[in-house]
Formats: sequence, structure tokens, C-alpha cells
Amino acid sequence: MNTQEKALQLHAEWQGKLDTVPKMKIATREDLALAYTPGVAEPCKVIAQDPDAAYTYTQKANTIAVVSDGSAVLGLGNIGPLSAMPVMEGKCALFKEFGGVNAVPLCLDTQDVDEIVDTVKRVAPSFGGINLEDISAPRCFEIERRLIEELDIPVFHDDQHGTAIVVLCGVINALRLTGKRREDVRVVVNGAGSAGIAISKLLLRWGIKHLVLCDIKGIISSRTEGATDAQREMLQWTNLDDVDGTLADALKGADVFVGVSAPNIVTGEMVAAMAPDAAVFAMANPVPEIMPDVAREAGARVVGTGRSDFPNQINNVVAFPGIFKGALEARATRITEEMKLAAAEALAALVSDDELCEDFIMPEPFDPRAAEAVAAAVKECVR
Amino acid sequence: MNTQEKALQLHAEWQGKLDTVPKMKIATREDLALAYTPGVAEPCKVIAQDPDAAYTYTQKANTIAVVSDGSAVLGLGNIGPLSAMPVMEGKCALFKEFGGVNAVPLCLDTQDVDEIVDTVKRVAPSFGGINLEDISAPRCFEIERRLIEELDIPVFHDDQHGTAIVVLCGVINALRLTGKRREDVRVVVNGAGSAGIAISKLLLRWGIKHLVLCDIKGIISSRTEGATDAQREMLQWTNLDDVDGTLADALKGADVFVGVSAPNIVTGEMVAAMAPDAAVFAMANPVPEIMPDVAREAGARVVGTGRSDFPNQINNVVAFPGIFKGALEARATRITEEMKLAAAEALAALVSDDELCEDFIMPEPFDPRAAEAVAAAVKECVR
Repeated sequence: MNTQEKALQLHAEWQGKLDTVPKMKIATREDLALAYTPGVAEPCKVIAQDPDAAYTYTQKANTIAVVSDGSAVLGLGNIGPLSAMPVMEGKCALFKEFGGVNAVPLCLDTQDVDEIVDTVKRVAPSFGGINLEDISAPRCFEIERRLIEELDIPVFHDDQHGTAIVVLCGVINALRLTGKRREDVRVVVNGAGSAGIAISKLLLRWGIKHLVLCDIKGIISSRTEGATDAQREMLQWTNLDDVDGTLADALKGADVFVGVSAPNIVTGEMVAAMAPDAAVFAMANPVPEIMPDVAREAGARVVGTGRSDFPNQINNVVAFPGIFKGALEARATRITEEMKLAAAEALAALVSDDELCEDFIMPEPFDPRAAEAVAAAVKECVR
Repeated sequence: MNTQEKALQLHAEWQGKLDTVPKMKIATREDLALAYTPGVAEPCKVIAQDPDAAYTYTQKANTIAVVSDGSAVLGLGNIGPLSAMPVMEGKCALFKEFGGVNAVPLCLDTQDVDEIVDTVKRVAPSFGGINLEDISAPRCFEIERRLIEELDIPVFHDDQHGTAIVVLCGVINALRLTGKRREDVRVVVNGAGSAGIAISKLLLRWGIKHLVLCDIKGIISSRTEGATDAQREMLQWTNLDDVDGTLADALKGADVFVGVSAPNIVTGEMVAAMAPDAAVFAMANPVPEIMPDVAREAGARVVGTGRSDFPNQINNVVAFPGIFKGALEARATRITEEMKLAAAEALAALVSDDELCEDFIMPEPFDPRAAEAVAAAVKECVR
């Protein structure tokens, strides 16, 4: 039985991947009187006087919602909320397994921005944070922006920022390995959707000065027709010479390639034309922009992909559980840019100088220190 | 430390009464590939082809939402969604503990009927059922009616129907003990809010013919000023002689008193004026309409209250876990009147002929057979 068949069979056995279980036994009248009536009235009354006490007495302290509208699920596209449930349940399982964070999947039967924003705001009293997941661009930008503005709990679109944090970790360690400086290197990000733009923004904020954003038509410049608002906004900080050209043109002499795009669109020739000691992060899944062996043969020194069967897997699971673990423990009301940078630095630092090499620039997805390190970094930003 | 203090301290230790835990270990790359990417894509694709498969592959099979707007919480009134969380978490804990049903608390930051209906409809893809809780009348009627009409999963307002089922169980066994017939007895229900009306409706549907509904101003008749729509509707089936009078007038010669009203409003004299072998269900909490010893001394043969420190506790916990357990297992799309009657009969039958006596007409709240018996009765109605 292959992975696909086995996964399907297991999902039928599980019938949902989550259990919601009481933290206490309720086996006697006294148990019932303490966890439910009449005792439960006490925390209710305290919260009614002081809303902040909800963090002391309710699940708001350690529970988030994983919210999706099913519009951009994995590589499957717009499959709708019901079909997105297995992914969101899996995400919630990872939050608990790696970060100790309780997470509840909420797949919404609407893809309207206003309705999504309204719905999340209305369920917010029950949660200490909102993880947005698999919502298509450009709606995801407005939904996240409005929820951040209008809610007093952290809101985080993992497809954007989780990915950005993990890519930045890879870039930090690739430069550390090759002795290059952030202000000198040239970076090409291919794929100018929500992930590509979030990655670019975080790299720039970290201190990358030279960054070119490409999409399927090549380098995005002031002359690119049909560019989205988000892509046009990026021109303030990217492609500063406002050049035009293909992806191959962009890669000539570049130090870092970041692909969140499509399979097999980068050739060995393109990589050969990059700068010495180039780093290639080819994250199209399951087939990357270029296969690692091809990239290495063409001269890339560091290659990372989204796949677990090659070295340097770029996997959000090292980031998102710790992000919310830290934010909840610190009672942060927002996930700031400073927190994202600190999280990436903390992840990069998990690879020691002794360990750091071409095939080991990323902490392993199962590194038990990852969530702790990220959470500590996030909390440090709140103090 | 008294119960109140202890409950508050425990709630602070728990910081939320629920944990959301994965059903599987995720400790290896293979685990991750099966529970999350890439394996998770398989159930997603199957559900996209056949929405019904969500019941095979997702938590829709065994997970409900416990939804409240915090408008009518316990005896605390309209304390809002945040303050209602401890109660809803407790309710979810009971669903799991007694019925094995996963339940997620959703306290909504709105008390507008349309917004509540819209919000519940939008989160519905994630759940196999909706338990409405502590929503004030008359809004609760419209919210439940519309959700039942517009959703294809069971929707159940426990304050109405759970209470009605458990009261009917008590009435069934009180008549069984005293040898009275449902078509002969006279029943007085005091308290004409959502619970009182739901109780009355279920008693009538079971076969009670003579029922008078009272509220704070006395017997509700066609001449009652300020009666609600729901109260007026009940006049089709209650107070058939259309009499006026006080609660004391109503109780003269009555066989059964059901109180969902206020403390100490029934006197020994009123009970003494009831028919021989009268049954008194005085469920105001924590202080009942009449204390059990007073009612017994005045001649009541059977007395039940909402309290655990007297015999015959009327406690919804014997009903609601089994209702949803049965509905989910049977893939019922609605909770029908037939199911509610069957649930009450099944609960009543848990008290054997040998056990049945004045002090034991209700199954104990912790009777482990209750949820099973109710679930079996509900499932029987679907087949």
C-alpha cells in the first residue's frame, strides 16, 4: 500500500484527527459541582467584572482557531471548506503535538472577505489566537489586515508568515555558511503570490538590500502589465534598478533563489549562471523548481526544498507551533515583524557551528527544541 | 474552602477545561506524511468529489459545537460571551465524559438573531451537530427554528429540549409509581419561558391532555395581557377551558407541578390542595419553588428538584450527551419530536420496577447507562 492509500485508510479509521477531552475527571457529584454547576458560576462572575480574567479561567489562555475557507488548499486549489477539513485537522494536530497549543479547526462556508472577517470576529471570544490557513490571495491580505486591526488577539496567516520565517532561517544559515553579508547578496524570489510576497518582505526587513520578485511572466517591474496591488506595492523596495527580463535574466549573478512557484522551471544552466556559493530554495511541492542533484551539479552550494526526502527541508512546522505558543504565553495581542525576525534567528541558531554544512542548514522538522526556541524568541519581544 | 472558592481556584489551575489532542502520534516523517502532507490530500480529494465522505474522513463524524451568545447563562443572566465560556467549556466536558462526543465551545460576540444564524451556518462545515446553549427567549426560538431549516446537521437547544426530556422522564415515572394515566392527569407548568414552553410541548406530545401554563402573573389565558407570541401559541393546546387565576388556583386538584420559575413561590398550602399522590418538580436553582421536605409534609408523594442534595435530581446531563451520541452515530439530520419522546421513555425505563419508589424516579446523573440508552433510542428513530 502506498502513502496515498494508507493515508486514506487511516483517515477512515480516525474519523477526524482530534479529540476534545476534559482536563479533569467528572466522576462524582462533587466533580460536577466544581467543573460545572454550581461552582462554574464563580469564574463567570469574575470574568463579567474583569474581561481579562478570561485568560486566567478559560481556554482563551491556550487555544486558537485554525480558520480556512478552503480556497487555496495545499496544491489542490479551491476545494471548499468541507474538503479542507482533513488539512485543518492535521494542522491542529501539529499545533498540539509540537507546541502544546490547543487548536480547533474552523472551515467557513463562505469565501466573501466581509463575511469571513465578521465570522472570525464573532467567534473570537472563545480563542486566544487565530491562525489563518489556505486562503487564496489577494483576499488573504485584506482578511488578515482587517482581523489584526479589529481583534485584540494575535492573527497570523501561516502560509505567508510561517513560510517566510522558515525561508529566512534558511537564508540566514546559507549566508552564515558561505560568509556572505545580507547587505551584499542578490536574492530572486520566484512566485509573487501571498507566500512570495511575505517572504520578500521579511527578507527585506531582515536587511536584504537587493531583491527581485518574479512571476510567471518574469521580473516584476514598473512596466509589468496586470501586476496585482500587492506586487506593485513591492516595487518600492524590490527591483530598485527597475529592470525587465526573464527569470533566467534575474538569476544571472544572484546569490539566493527562493521558489514558491512551479515544478521544473529552473534549469541547471540558470543555476550555473548564479554567483559562486549560491543557495537555491526550490519549494514547489511535490516537484521542486529544480531537483537538488541538478542544482548541486550546476554549482549551487546549498539546496533546500519542501520535501522530506532531501536535506534542508523547508517546513513550517518548525515555526507555527512556537509562534502561537510564545504569543499565548506572553499574552501578545499581535504577531509583530520583530517576532518573526526573532523566530527565524532562533531557528537558525539551533544549527550549531559544528553542525552547519551544505546538507544541514535547517533544524529538522522534528527537532524538539524548535517550538521552545521560537516561543522563547517571541516572548522576548513582548517583554 | 467552600465549593465556590474551590471551583474558582480549580478553574485557574485548569486555564480552560478542554484539551484538543491528536488521535495519532506524529513522531516520524512517515507519521507526518500520513496525517498531514502529502497523504492528507487523499481524503480532501475524495470529499471534494463526494461531500458525504466528510463523515468518513473528518471530525464531522463525532464533533459538535456548543454555541452560546451568553445572553441567559445559568442564573446569571446576560453576562455576555466571554463570561459564558466556563459554562460552555463545562458543557463540552460533559458531552465527552458522558457521551464520548467531541464538543467545541463557541461563544459568539453578537446577540443579533441574524448574525448568530449566519455565523453558525458559516462554521457548520466543521461540525456534525450544533448544541445551542443559554440563549435567551424569544430569540432562541427563532435561532433554533431557522438553523434547523437551513442546516443539514442536527440543531438542539438543550435548555429547551434537554430539560423537557428529563422532566418527561420524571413525569412518566411519577405516573408509573402512582398508577395514574397520562390522559387523566392535570399538569401545571409554572414559568412560561423557553424551558417551560418546551416542557409543555413535549408533555402534550407524549399524551398529557390537561395542562395549564402559568407565569409570574398567574394562569395564561386568552385574556392575559403582554403574553409573548410563544405563550399565545400554546393556548391552542393548553388551558382548554380558558380559565384565569393565580398559580394557587391552578394547583387546586392538579396532579403534577413543574416549576422552572423562582424560589419559594409554592407554599405547603398550595401543595396540600393538589390531588392525592401529587408530583412536584420544583426546579428553580439553587433554591427551588418549594423545599422538598415542605412539599412532602404537605402531601406530595413525589418531589424532584434541580439539586444534587435531594432525591430525584432533574439533570439534563442524563439526556444531552446521549441525544447527540445517537444522532451522530445514526447520521440524523434533525432531532425529531419522536427522538425526544423515545429518549424520555428510555431514561424512565432505566429505573426498574423493583427500584421505582418515591425517592427514586430518575436515573442518577452519573448512571453510565443513560447516554447509551438515550443514544440507542434516538438511533432507533432513524432506522
